[in-house]
Amino acid sequence: MLPNPFEKDCPTRQILDRIGDRWTVLIILTLSDGPQRFTDIGKRVEGISQKVLTQTLQSLVRDGMLTRTAYAEIPPRVEYELTKLGRNLAETVAYLDRWAREHIDEVIKAREAYDGVSA
Amino acid sequence: MLPNPFEKDCPTRQILDRIGDRWTVLIILTLSDGPQRFTDIGKRVEGISQKVLTQTLQSLVRDGMLTRTAYAEIPPRVEYELTKLGRNLAETVAYLDRWAREHIDEVIKAREAYDGVSA
Repeated sequence: MLPNPFEKDCPTRQILDRIGDRWTVLIILTLSDGPQRFTDIGKRVEGISQKVLTQTLQSLVRDGMLTRTAYAEIPPRVEYELTKLGRNLAETVAYLDRWAREHIDEVIKAREAYDGVSA
Repeated sequence: MLPNPFEKDCPTRQILDRIGDRWTVLIILTLSDGPQRFTDIGKRVEGISQKVLTQTLQSLVRDGMLTRTAYAEIPPRVEYELTKLGRNLAETVAYLDRWAREHIDEVIKAREAYDGVSA
């Protein structure tokens, strides 16, 4: 069977959910600049909770997008880095990021027009 | 201020949520083939509930991605069609779809390896 996200049991649907997730997009883009520590990712991605950051990073490691490396230092240092698959995904999510930045004004105008008509 | 989804109050974050949503991606891709009726979209996007389909279509109309046209026929016919903005988004979400189809096997293998190590 060929992967087809239009079919309800196809696992590509989970992948669509994962790669379309707001936090995934922002974390992947952050790590496009190189490996980073947990706290630095949290600072860059404003408003993400520790819990969601932990969960999202763990899911991305499980999905093969990131590696997690713990350095035996004092204090301990843990770094996350994109894998080859993750770097490949980064190119794709960069399109989403660019689209959102370029078209936000049009979307806001459309919403105002819609809400004005409906109100 | 330039749009920047890394900032927590930037409206581009909502746009990322919208364009990354699984149902949005599948509906936009379906409508890439031309205008379609509500029931036909629901058949193509397997497993979507009537409620979620209604809500997602309404949000996409509000965001300026789709138009909704009601024809005065018996029985009444309602069609949805991509706007110029929606067609532009369709090109971007097609990258997500392609990525998911092309890389699903790698992600599944990564998960199996991770779960095997963690178990």
